[in-house]
Amino acid sequence: MKSLKITSLVAAAAVTISAFSLPASAADRVYKLKMAETWSSNFPIFGDAPRNMARIAESMSNGRLKITIDSSNKHKAPLGIFDMVRSGQYDMGHSASYYWKGKVPNTLYFTTMPFGMTTPEQYGWFYHGGGMELMQKTYQPLGLESYPGGNTGNQMGGWFQKEINGLEDLKGLKMRIPGFAGEVLAKLGAKPTNIASGELYTALERRTIDALEWVGPSLDLRMGFHKIAPYYYTGWHEPATELQFLVNARAMKKLPEDLREILRVSMKLASYDMYIQSYHESAENWVTMKTEYPNVEVKTFPKEVLAAMKKANDELLAEKAAADPLAKEILDSQAEYMEKVRVWTNISDRAYLDSIDSLDK
Amino acid sequence: MKSLKITSLVAAAAVTISAFSLPASAADRVYKLKMAETWSSNFPIFGDAPRNMARIAESMSNGRLKITIDSSNKHKAPLGIFDMVRSGQYDMGHSASYYWKGKVPNTLYFTTMPFGMTTPEQYGWFYHGGGMELMQKTYQPLGLESYPGGNTGNQMGGWFQKEINGLEDLKGLKMRIPGFAGEVLAKLGAKPTNIASGELYTALERRTIDALEWVGPSLDLRMGFHKIAPYYYTGWHEPATELQFLVNARAMKKLPEDLREILRVSMKLASYDMYIQSYHESAENWVTMKTEYPNVEVKTFPKEVLAAMKKANDELLAEKAAADPLAKEILDSQAEYMEKVRVWTNISDRAYLDSIDSLDK
Repeated sequence: MKSLKITSLVAAAAVTISAFSLPASAADRVYKLKMAETWSSNFPIFGDAPRNMARIAESMSNGRLKITIDSSNKHKAPLGIFDMVRSGQYDMGHSASYYWKGKVPNTLYFTTMPFGMTTPEQYGWFYHGGGMELMQKTYQPLGLESYPGGNTGNQMGGWFQKEINGLEDLKGLKMRIPGFAGEVLAKLGAKPTNIASGELYTALERRTIDALEWVGPSLDLRMGFHKIAPYYYTGWHEPATELQFLVNARAMKKLPEDLREILRVSMKLASYDMYIQSYHESAENWVTMKTEYPNVEVKTFPKEVLAAMKKANDELLAEKAAADPLAKEILDSQAEYMEKVRVWTNISDRAYLDSIDSLDK
Repeated sequence: MKSLKITSLVAAAAVTISAFSLPASAADRVYKLKMAETWSSNFPIFGDAPRNMARIAESMSNGRLKITIDSSNKHKAPLGIFDMVRSGQYDMGHSASYYWKGKVPNTLYFTTMPFGMTTPEQYGWFYHGGGMELMQKTYQPLGLESYPGGNTGNQMGGWFQKEINGLEDLKGLKMRIPGFAGEVLAKLGAKPTNIASGELYTALERRTIDALEWVGPSLDLRMGFHKIAPYYYTGWHEPATELQFLVNARAMKKLPEDLREILRVSMKLASYDMYIQSYHESAENWVTMKTEYPNVEVKTFPKEVLAAMKKANDELLAEKAAADPLAKEILDSQAEYMEKVRVWTNISDRAYLDSIDSLDK
């Protein structure tokens, strides 16, 4: 009752409505976009981002913009998104930019980099440090537009059967770790490999591989790795994995300007939202893992190992920068931005977290 | 030329357009909302958030939703937003929830709390941990809707003329630090005070006050405090200051559902965007401060001082929880969420940042 009384005192608000007819062209048609995603149907978090995007785009446009999503079960080409969107078979895709490095090498740099920026740092680079412009420079000649597609947050370094106490322990280590981070480990004598996700659990359990990295607690929990590997290493190789919305530029041009804006805003919001969802799910799922398997130990690689990884990483990046002017432009931009922004991270969030943590010791 | 060639190979994309008439009611009127902000005109970052919100709402609605913004120069009541939106004099406001604690004590908890959550942690609480529901429970009986309005990121502990080496140094310390954090310091013998922003520089320069907190480099730079105080302390009292969009519930109800969704999405996106803008500006401005005044030293309060602040904070919160069941519900929700999410922060971003930092030592 108290609340009803208070509400009744609120005066009518000052919304004014004026009769005003808008051009009919923008309001009287339904535009349909077809999107293909890398993920299989019902894939958590990664699959939520494009669906959240489509849902808010449809409700904001009052049904004028309808986006349908085909999962990999349907289109059968999880890593064919780039080609299918470029050819116009699909108008849009949801995937990750670094999957296209074999086709267009500079696409590697718009997802995350080993020893690179954290999530808020990388969003700062995208939106205020020139990142979006460099991504456009990379994708525009291909007839594509690329946008952030949701962040996983800091990824864990992976599940290990044995402790890594020094560089010797990396020699011959069979680890599922795809992409550029795999190249870094290969330089240190490890044997990186890729294995289909459905076979990972058995491979780790039967010691076909010694270690693997997947994402973090948000997605690792349902894979069950905590049941069969005792060491969970903290991250170094994917500090801010940003997925990707890929849009065929001609499809974008066919939309009226208000729907283009609705699409851009929906993609941007769904991406930020996936970051927060991932953060939350990781927190929840880590509690579950630790409760079910209290013996799981969180470990950080020794300084000697991290330093060697960093050196190998720097050498590989220097090779890429020397071979391609746009690669150099992107990598220089990232390095300059990170140097500046990391100082701020260290005196703000990190100093704060260290302060609080010191009180418990 | 190369880029043109590639573009010409892209096939026409599969946008399909169907003739379909929508109900005229949603599309043929312009809705105008009046918003009042706490900030003066041209106030950076804080003032950008509502303007970015209004701009994307207008462009997504194709001009059907127009939001005009009055700064405090015009409405003359920077801390009157709550009353003006509640009475319907304005449809919306942009301010901060903790400014209303004198009117409705439980509004204190929806901005940031000393020793509380970081920005991604707090967004996790708002959107997945029950925070939005508790905020609604607090504001709904008042005829108001409250939404996140943009985050400053971790705020610095402030500018000090003298080092704080122990609890003795807090006794009698005259510091501009308003609100709840001021109450915490008062318990430790400091003399918190509030001074209008235009007089802060002179007060600190002439030692009328010994210290002050403002925001962080993003907004402190133009205040010039780095020119007159040698110590910049890291944060403890506002780890994730979230501004607020306040909406008169009747004004919201008068909008058609698609414009309500456009408004909600625009507010949510502008808030995340302000977090990233603040992060970026802090990084940039800290470089500027440090270049112009290289002798400025970043300091962290000694453990003894932090522990005493934390204890005083906990005691004050316990009093508030004991006095009001909704306060207890909110504070318990925050404490439980933070306990869970901080473990994840520590093994993800913090472990990563520590790893990287250790390589330079």
